[in-house]
Amino acid sequence: MNSSQTKTQIWVVENGQKRARGDRLATEEPLEIRLVSPQRTVAVTMRSPGGDLELAAGFLYSEGVVSKRSDIENLSYCVDPEVDGEQRYNIVNVKLKEGLIPDLQPLERHFYTTSACGVCGKASLEHLRVQGCAVMPPGLQVSAEVIYSLPAQLRAAQRIFDRTGGLHAAALFDREGELLSLKEDVGRHNALDKLIGTALLGGQLPLSNHMIMVSGRASFELLQKSLRAGVPIVCAVSAPSSLAVSLAREFNITLVGFLREQRFNVYTAIERICLK
Amino acid sequence: MNSSQTKTQIWVVENGQKRARGDRLATEEPLEIRLVSPQRTVAVTMRSPGGDLELAAGFLYSEGVVSKRSDIENLSYCVDPEVDGEQRYNIVNVKLKEGLIPDLQPLERHFYTTSACGVCGKASLEHLRVQGCAVMPPGLQVSAEVIYSLPAQLRAAQRIFDRTGGLHAAALFDREGELLSLKEDVGRHNALDKLIGTALLGGQLPLSNHMIMVSGRASFELLQKSLRAGVPIVCAVSAPSSLAVSLAREFNITLVGFLREQRFNVYTAIERICLK
Repeated sequence: MNSSQTKTQIWVVENGQKRARGDRLATEEPLEIRLVSPQRTVAVTMRSPGGDLELAAGFLYSEGVVSKRSDIENLSYCVDPEVDGEQRYNIVNVKLKEGLIPDLQPLERHFYTTSACGVCGKASLEHLRVQGCAVMPPGLQVSAEVIYSLPAQLRAAQRIFDRTGGLHAAALFDREGELLSLKEDVGRHNALDKLIGTALLGGQLPLSNHMIMVSGRASFELLQKSLRAGVPIVCAVSAPSSLAVSLAREFNITLVGFLREQRFNVYTAIERICLK
Repeated sequence: MNSSQTKTQIWVVENGQKRARGDRLATEEPLEIRLVSPQRTVAVTMRSPGGDLELAAGFLYSEGVVSKRSDIENLSYCVDPEVDGEQRYNIVNVKLKEGLIPDLQPLERHFYTTSACGVCGKASLEHLRVQGCAVMPPGLQVSAEVIYSLPAQLRAAQRIFDRTGGLHAAALFDREGELLSLKEDVGRHNALDKLIGTALLGGQLPLSNHMIMVSGRASFELLQKSLRAGVPIVCAVSAPSSLAVSLAREFNITLVGFLREQRFNVYTAIERICLK
């Protein structure tokens, strides 16, 4: 069974000095929820391992596929011998009560696509390579001072737009730390899509000399979008997930987290950040 | 065009006193992204109105459906006369370059279902009625003191489980404010599905005498899940969206936001909260 926490080594940069430290990341892995007989995938969601049977049950209840306890005959991890060890704990098989014909139409008509491909993190990373995403060249160099300056700029720009306290933000900066664009949305993936879509329509992709900063946590999905747009440095106010760090390592993206005044963590590719 | 902010009237409860105040909510509405010829819905996402064409462009780029500016011939709001005024601004039509056959397979195989039904908030609420969700009876009464006590309990329980700083939490409390269950996840909808799934499997639904508290913002999706589980009081550390408030009003759920020590906002159904 996958653990809900993943150990890693990070750099802490504080007042212009770096030091190595062990750290724990929230594990992020895709979970596939399957109905059996007839076999049918009803959802793939990026989740923290643990409580997976309950997650499957709660999801099916929330979506109206089941409406009481007895509608579910059995919940179990996949025992298909074709599926290897790690992946088995990323697939839950749900056997509904004999004779229950669930209404799957809401699930069919209204889906929100995600980048989760296959049923484990490795497969998700492999899919990005198949899509043509390449390892980022070193190139860009940015000083720690410039990184320190980003959160105050993000907050100042957010204050102008967000009077509701209810929006996530994604901001684009150039290598000197100048704010070029800020987008806000109730969904953090949408804020980043708006930012990248604006650059696409303006003929500015790839963003090889740019940095992206997001207001919350750094998930796999945000890193995947940044990678597609060619952004070599991604900063987050809060923590990254394990799969976000794996993606950043695999594609040589500099991933910065817990970015506050005069302090941040670097999870991958610290070479792009110049310290005095 | 829909505004990115929605005005509303709220109650501020502070030190046992309530006062009415105007407030602004982040607008949340579904956006449907459609390809034309052949017509095909590729995504429905809950988003803040504004920058919708950029959102559609960025989404298609991130997912690998388009790979350069010239792959998109045209982006426009829906002009289908069958679609009424409000809904038109919730549908973006994307015309791809003549001859471009996009690979939609990743979108087909890997979807994450959402409760967004139809293409406007009204349709989403209507869908819940069709699913059999009924207006919550008044019944449950909880004192402001009990509400004040929830965030400290949530934080204390989170500290035990979350050493990563990267997890959302959803907690179940009884009417006396005792913490019954806490679930964490990198995805906030997953944390709530785990909580509700546990109650379903334990034969505890509906949760008519219970309160739910979530660690972040209150979206439509979280309110929809709480409604299905029959929870009459939902509290959030941070802000609710406009569609979350609409749902709470429609189904008479007590929605509390910005819940901190000795202070919170009540958006709907304040009758369940007893003040001295």
